[in-house]
Amino acid sequence: MKLLLAIVQDKDSNLLSSELIDANIRATKLSTTGGFLKSGNTTFIVGIEDERVPEALKIIEKTCQAREQFMIPPVNMDATMDSSMSYPIEVQVGGATVFVMPIEQFHRF
Amino acid sequence: MKLLLAIVQDKDSNLLSSELIDANIRATKLSTTGGFLKSGNTTFIVGIEDERVPEALKIIEKTCQAREQFMIPPVNMDATMDSSMSYPIEVQVGGATVFVMPIEQFHRF
Amino acid sequence: MKLLLAIVQDKDSNLLSSELIDANIRATKLSTTGGFLKSGNTTFIVGIEDERVPEALKIIEKTCQAREQFMIPPVNMDATMDSSMSYPIEVQVGGATVFVMPIEQFHRF
Ligand code: NI
Ligand code: NI
Ligand code: NI
Repeated sequence: MKLLLAIVQDKDSNLLSSELIDANIRATKLSTTGGFLKSGNTTFIVGIEDERVPEALKIIEKTCQAREQFMIPPVNMDATMDSSMSYPIEVQVGGATVFVMPIEQFHRF
Repeated sequence: MKLLLAIVQDKDSNLLSSELIDANIRATKLSTTGGFLKSGNTTFIVGIEDERVPEALKIIEKTCQAREQFMIPPVNMDATMDSSMSYPIEVQVGGATVFVMPIEQFHRF
Repeated sequence: MKLLLAIVQDKDSNLLSSELIDANIRATKLSTTGGFLKSGNTTFIVGIEDERVPEALKIIEKTCQAREQFMIPPVNMDATMDSSMSYPIEVQVGGATVFVMPIEQFHRF
């Protein structure tokens, strides 16, 4: 058994939950904040058999990978600026940090 | 020292806290969700001397072990059904998942 | 890489966040409760290169170390007691519990 600690963005958290359930991988979710990101993130605690670690990592990568997205920035309140300035900008979303940790014993009661 | 990560049902969480305090075992509690369970659960982080690991496991097992319980299901809103249909059903409650993890250093400041 | 799990008092949590950011150390924060303390505390998950572990520990120690502080106890509601009884008392605040844990794999997606 290994313990995976996966820190992902809140926006990817629901999809990751479903993908893990589909793969019959149990996870526990913690609501977390921080890193350099101001926005909330979610930490998944996953207990998994050694031979399924690569499969779990692949699911996390596929679901949460950092990617570019176009976003319309909030309207500029400065009246002297032309509203036509509000064009979409490219931002990075997603991303996951995953720690694979050894386990000495695993029990279910 | 070992670190125990114990995921238990919310309903067993207060009793587990008191039992650990009685045994002079320090624990930190995280509010968590998920697994296949929809209901909330609590994750305990316990730092414990190697020789007391079996004792801590026994306390968790005794307090949180999965067990059957009779429960009266919520009243059926369908008026065509006889209210006498609300008889107690047996459900499984409790249960704990525990990871025992190695620690390389432990510090108290 | 190592994973540091640092449990600190809420009152030291913001300062610790800034000090870690200053040192370019990424941390994820969990809101936690318990131990023998009734008050809330915060658990930091820090992923850090082996050679920077002592530096991270020093930051946690410097920021969160247990120390004495004078506090004016809440006003005594018992009208028979003289209000001059409300003199400052010395209490212990702060303190940190830190686990340094091995990591087998570390991934960023
Ligand atoms: Ni294993
Ligand atoms: Ni040990
Ligand atoms: Ni390392």
